Amino acid sequence: MGRQKVYLEKLARSFQIRNLLLRQALAECLGTLILVMFGCGAVAQLVLSGGSHGMFLTVNFAFGFAATLGILVCGQVSGGHLNPAVTFALCLLGRERWRKFPMYFAFQTLGAFLGSAIIFGLYFDALWDYGHGDLIVIGKNATAGIFATYPSPHLTIVNGFFDQMIGTAALIVCILAIVDPYNNPIPRGLEAFTVGFVVLVIGLSMGFNSGYAVNPARDLGPRLFTALAGWGSEVFSACKYWFFVPIFAPFLGTIVGVIVYQLMVGFHVEGEAREKQEQEEERIKLSNVSSKDMA
Amino acid sequence: MGRQKVYLEKLARSFQIRNLLLRQALAECLGTLILVMFGCGAVAQLVLSGGSHGMFLTVNFAFGFAATLGILVCGQVSGGHLNPAVTFALCLLGRERWRKFPMYFAFQTLGAFLGSAIIFGLYFDALWDYGHGDLIVIGKNATAGIFATYPSPHLTIVNGFFDQMIGTAALIVCILAIVDPYNNPIPRGLEAFTVGFVVLVIGLSMGFNSGYAVNPARDLGPRLFTALAGWGSEVFSACKYWFFVPIFAPFLGTIVGVIVYQLMVGFHVEGEAREKQEQEEERIKLSNVSSKDMA
Amino acid sequence: MGRQKVYLEKLARSFQIRNLLLRQALAECLGTLILVMFGCGAVAQLVLSGGSHGMFLTVNFAFGFAATLGILVCGQVSGGHLNPAVTFALCLLGRERWRKFPMYFAFQTLGAFLGSAIIFGLYFDALWDYGHGDLIVIGKNATAGIFATYPSPHLTIVNGFFDQMIGTAALIVCILAIVDPYNNPIPRGLEAFTVGFVVLVIGLSMGFNSGYAVNPARDLGPRLFTALAGWGSEVFSACKYWFFVPIFAPFLGTIVGVIVYQLMVGFHVEGEAREKQEQEEERIKLSNVSSKDMA
Amino acid sequence: MGRQKVYLEKLARSFQIRNLLLRQALAECLGTLILVMFGCGAVAQLVLSGGSHGMFLTVNFAFGFAATLGILVCGQVSGGHLNPAVTFALCLLGRERWRKFPMYFAFQTLGAFLGSAIIFGLYFDALWDYGHGDLIVIGKNATAGIFATYPSPHLTIVNGFFDQMIGTAALIVCILAIVDPYNNPIPRGLEAFTVGFVVLVIGLSMGFNSGYAVNPARDLGPRLFTALAGWGSEVFSACKYWFFVPIFAPFLGTIVGVIVYQLMVGFHVEGEAREKQEQEEERIKLSNVSSKDMA
Repeated sequence: MGRQKVYLEKLARSFQIRNLLLRQALAECLGTLILVMFGCGAVAQLVLSGGSHGMFLTVNFAFGFAATLGILVCGQVSGGHLNPAVTFALCLLGRERWRKFPMYFAFQTLGAFLGSAIIFGLYFDALWDYGHGDLIVIGKNATAGIFATYPSPHLTIVNGFFDQMIGTAALIVCILAIVDPYNNPIPRGLEAFTVGFVVLVIGLSMGFNSGYAVNPARDLGPRLFTALAGWGSEVFSACKYWFFVPIFAPFLGTIVGVIVYQLMVGFHVEGEAREKQEQEEERIKLSNVSSKDMA
Repeated sequence: MGRQKVYLEKLARSFQIRNLLLRQALAECLGTLILVMFGCGAVAQLVLSGGSHGMFLTVNFAFGFAATLGILVCGQVSGGHLNPAVTFALCLLGRERWRKFPMYFAFQTLGAFLGSAIIFGLYFDALWDYGHGDLIVIGKNATAGIFATYPSPHLTIVNGFFDQMIGTAALIVCILAIVDPYNNPIPRGLEAFTVGFVVLVIGLSMGFNSGYAVNPARDLGPRLFTALAGWGSEVFSACKYWFFVPIFAPFLGTIVGVIVYQLMVGFHVEGEAREKQEQEEERIKLSNVSSKDMA
Repeated sequence: MGRQKVYLEKLARSFQIRNLLLRQALAECLGTLILVMFGCGAVAQLVLSGGSHGMFLTVNFAFGFAATLGILVCGQVSGGHLNPAVTFALCLLGRERWRKFPMYFAFQTLGAFLGSAIIFGLYFDALWDYGHGDLIVIGKNATAGIFATYPSPHLTIVNGFFDQMIGTAALIVCILAIVDPYNNPIPRGLEAFTVGFVVLVIGLSMGFNSGYAVNPARDLGPRLFTALAGWGSEVFSACKYWFFVPIFAPFLGTIVGVIVYQLMVGFHVEGEAREKQEQEEERIKLSNVSSKDMA
Repeated sequence: MGRQKVYLEKLARSFQIRNLLLRQALAECLGTLILVMFGCGAVAQLVLSGGSHGMFLTVNFAFGFAATLGILVCGQVSGGHLNPAVTFALCLLGRERWRKFPMYFAFQTLGAFLGSAIIFGLYFDALWDYGHGDLIVIGKNATAGIFATYPSPHLTIVNGFFDQMIGTAALIVCILAIVDPYNNPIPRGLEAFTVGFVVLVIGLSMGFNSGYAVNPARDLGPRLFTALAGWGSEVFSACKYWFFVPIFAPFLGTIVGVIVYQLMVGFHVEGEAREKQEQEEERIKLSNVSSKDMA
């Protein structure tokens, strides 16, 4: 076993990436890959089995726990955002540097692209079997909805925009509460599980309109993949260029979520902590003054 | 990023509310908003999708985990009651001041009102689509039941009153066990998750009669909203003025729950702790006496 | 609030029970009440709603998480057995005194009796509605199966006995692993949740034959209640006196479970701990000897 | 009770196995028995009840939480692999000795064999009832699929091989993240629960093709049992000798999973830890040198 260890360490040294941002982006890529692979895999299982091996609840569970697992895999390295909207929220609050945002966005989208490619391979036979040799975007035997989201027939673009905005705002309020350094409600190490529950609950209650993307990378990556893999450019033009909505509405929702959380909880717990610290400093200054006086 | 931080801190100072009770009431409002938004959202998804995107189990999960998330968001600030019955129980036991009760009740109801308003907006198109352009309280294509609770046809008012009383008593017994300072059965930080399981289990086993409100604010807030939003005053008069039951029965149930828990567990664990302390004090007094004698 | 506190403490002192065994038995009674109330409530919801408000999975979730909640409520006082088979296993291993066994068995059965009485009251209207004014034990519109277990038509008594034996053995193996003092696999405070998962999994995989009682008290208490509440003595004579099986098979299963766990894991981890301790003692003795020699 | 304790200790000493590897292999055997007993039990409940007591989701829950329970029972003794692919991954990374691999593989397969034998006994009546007195491998009323996995009609061998490879790779990436000593994302003691979620999610999203064995022992043990118990050698020859796939594809998937995790996360967190340590050593050496100079 001695020789194996030496060889392994040599490997480790050769492949170690020293650029921190690249390392973090790679980790985000793997985390989002896991999220989309398991999540879209569950949609594929539901659609392709005709309901015998899944239902909407199993998709909700899969996306929720896939978020948990994705965060667990990359969280220690990159923070486990898996979602440009989350990165955006943390940048807005000054907790992450802005230059992380484009890098994370790109690698999260890449991860989502790769995750949907894996599911395409995994269910290759079943996809062709289901579509009778065709890859259809909208209508009967459509399979593009396995990868990216498309609105239900009842949904207008305006309502759809509101849907994605509210969904993301709800996500952001809950995530901010979970990771707020002044309001730590859960034991350390359980953040990933709690975020998974947030994603699960959003799916249980806000999934009927358009499938709760609430994540620009999770929607854009797989949509790009389907465009290239044979579904064609219709994946972008379908439903009045719907693809714009899950890219832009989430960022607006992020702003709403940050404002709501900060106004109703965040500013107050932060303020309390700040005041306690200022009083402490005041006390120290005073005692310094008085000790000087004494002297 | 330096400038952003300065600006953020200025914002934080401007919007910080210094009145503790108001801050707590605001937090309760946000927590109950989250509970009702996710919970009623799941009912909406079940009803409006005609069962394709939900079932009664998904509603149970949504209300359970929504309770968890609501508590996580506001728990550090306000205790995370989300339910006037819980506030009432803690007041009865002398663990919260009575003047909190009306304030919390009002803001919890406000939160529930706002939560159902958000769901109304989120499923605006689907609501009109389902009701064929009408908002119906009772009968086929009724949608009022998405927001407030209405009894099943088999239920009499007396049985319904008992149903709400027992449901709330069960909730209170479990919550008292979870937060009893003399009987700490779970690791700190997991209370929110455990309460979520309580709400889930109540839904799994006591939801058939009238939809397990067991929370006056969760029922009154959305009912007020539906009255204003277009369903009209029938939401109050329907089913022999049913709306009285989920407001008053829970408080009676709270009293039953507090008595049962205290008689069967609470008084005994508390007594044990008190006796231990008294013996300790006795010992100290005696040793003081003897040391004086020595002197 | 001062006066309220004084009054509450006076109450606490009056109702405090000082006999430890009685206090523990009362706690077991409440815990088993919670288990049966939520568990049988879920069966009632499934049966009486004709499947619209439940399915077998919801019954499994309810019994699993009801076990968790029952243990949380009484665990600190009585250990949270909720099941005479668990008490029996701990007595066999010398971890509980034998005189606890009859007392716990009686109060667990009493708790199960009361729990099913509460569900009878909660679903009173629905029960009469479902049975068209009759309480039927076996056959169409039967409702006795809500409370106690009855075998599926395919099941022989011999296979049923094996079913209850194996189910209880599986339960006991898992519980022994969870509470083994020499093999502590989970963080303190999570035992109740883990036992809930055990009960859930048993229901998911061993529930088809006869509804996985695996607990003499959980079956006997509700059966006694149904006999008295109007279903009559047929609840005992039905299916070739089936009621004997869920009372006696679990104890045999307990013995099997204890033997399997101890032979395959328990004795070895215990032995390792004992040997470590003996070596330690040996070392101390030797060092004492040598220090005496020195002197 | 004194006499009982003496007798129990005597028993413990007689049956204690002192060979560490054998003890570990026995523990793995019991853990895998639990995994397969609960997992295949849930498939049996789904198939034999014709869907009334189960659905694909309940099988996913059962396998997931059965993995959790299996790991809890044996984890402290043997590490709780329950899967030769996991043992293989840890050997590849030099964290377990290679001689453990064949021993663990054999006893995991034995445990899976015994677990399926228990389910055969538990559902003996139901099996004969369902097959109308026959044990059928493939087609209508087939029951062999309760124990081992068989591919869906749409699946080619190549796609099936890819399916098992990807499934196992996903499992290994997640497990490596969970147990990585340099990337400890979860509190100690929750590994078993997290692995259970991984197994659950794999079932939710990768179960449609061939039932997600992703574990050579879990598939081979029950297949051997069915061959002997009356289904005959067809269990091996069916579907173009499918049985080869869930034995060999997982090991290939393990290699893929190890490489992906190490390249994208593992090497970098390990390297960071190593560099920190080297700097520390450098600092100590320097300070030693300088203190010598001083002297």
